[in-house]
Amino acid sequence: MDRVFVLIANRAVTAPFNLNDLPGSAGRMDIVCRFISQSLFVSHGIRKNVTAYIILKGPPDPVKSIRVEGSQVRYLAPDERNIAGMINKALKTDVGEGWTRVSPGIFISSKGLDDVLKELSGRNIYYLKETGKDIENVEVSRPVFVIGDHLGVSEEDEKSILEISEEVISLEETAYQADQCVTILNYILDRREHDRGM
Amino acid sequence: MDRVFVLIANRAVTAPFNLNDLPGSAGRMDIVCRFISQSLFVSHGIRKNVTAYIILKGPPDPVKSIRVEGSQVRYLAPDERNIAGMINKALKTDVGEGWTRVSPGIFISSKGLDDVLKELSGRNIYYLKETGKDIENVEVSRPVFVIGDHLGVSEEDEKSILEISEEVISLEETAYQADQCVTILNYILDRREHDRGM
Repeated sequence: MDRVFVLIANRAVTAPFNLNDLPGSAGRMDIVCRFISQSLFVSHGIRKNVTAYIILKGPPDPVKSIRVEGSQVRYLAPDERNIAGMINKALKTDVGEGWTRVSPGIFISSKGLDDVLKELSGRNIYYLKETGKDIENVEVSRPVFVIGDHLGVSEEDEKSILEISEEVISLEETAYQADQCVTILNYILDRREHDRGM
Repeated sequence: MDRVFVLIANRAVTAPFNLNDLPGSAGRMDIVCRFISQSLFVSHGIRKNVTAYIILKGPPDPVKSIRVEGSQVRYLAPDERNIAGMINKALKTDVGEGWTRVSPGIFISSKGLDDVLKELSGRNIYYLKETGKDIENVEVSRPVFVIGDHLGVSEEDEKSILEISEEVISLEETAYQADQCVTILNYILDRREHDRGM
């Protein structure tokens, strides 16, 4: 089953940044890197059925989004610095309203959350929130998981998400980091597929 | 319930390294950093009930081990570079057979895997291997999870582990990275504790 993960990165910068200071001046770009890494990588391989979207909402531009296609991506390693280098390269590229290809499987645009969600209509949006329904009791199909970073999700973004979301879900009583949510979701879906003999 | 995670880092160097090249010249130190990060961190906090051990088996020294106590650690952030800086500091410290304190909650020694496992006797050793018993069918108590890196576990190390291990376990048919195993194990144990009302 193919899976889409969307991270709302509230402070992640929209211009090239210093690779030696991901958490600081790059606006918690370390979270973005781990999120992409955990979405795509398994031991000695990449999940070809995963697409990750990052909504970068930090300065100086209003918003940019990055799309990573597991089926196409190449030359990417799971460490934060390698992924940050790929993001930096994307942020040096001119962006438009459509997706501009930066390297195999990596695309950038000036789309915001609303545009990305609109693009994903036809799939089911699952919004991760601590007060949501326990995922153990939720049947998941054609999922788009929308996850906030360390600052959560703004009221405005939440409004947009709730208008079209299939379900608000939660993982457990523990509050996990965004990348940990992805790892756990991948695990839960792997197990369900395995149990179904897929 | 307190939890111990042990990573066997087959190539991770035992002398100070370049923070800009964790996967290369530092011998996949990026895996070590992610392992520590995923053992200890949750959203906006540190798991006080976790201890992480890293067995560094790369050059130039025969072996060194690092111990991180979640209950004592301070000034640590979850990004790879921050944790690598802490490891670098530890590797600049003179080591002996006992544990030398490097900073709050961070210790280093010349212990190898056997010494560390001996130190943990009295707890239950669970060895993670793809052919192991599905963790869903294993009751876990006072756990020490022993996990290999991208190269797995050497025959010699495996022999030592099997001599004293309580059970050989596996997570799922998917082969996860070492840090992903930790995230998933923490999730499974969180959920079990929650279900028991702990």
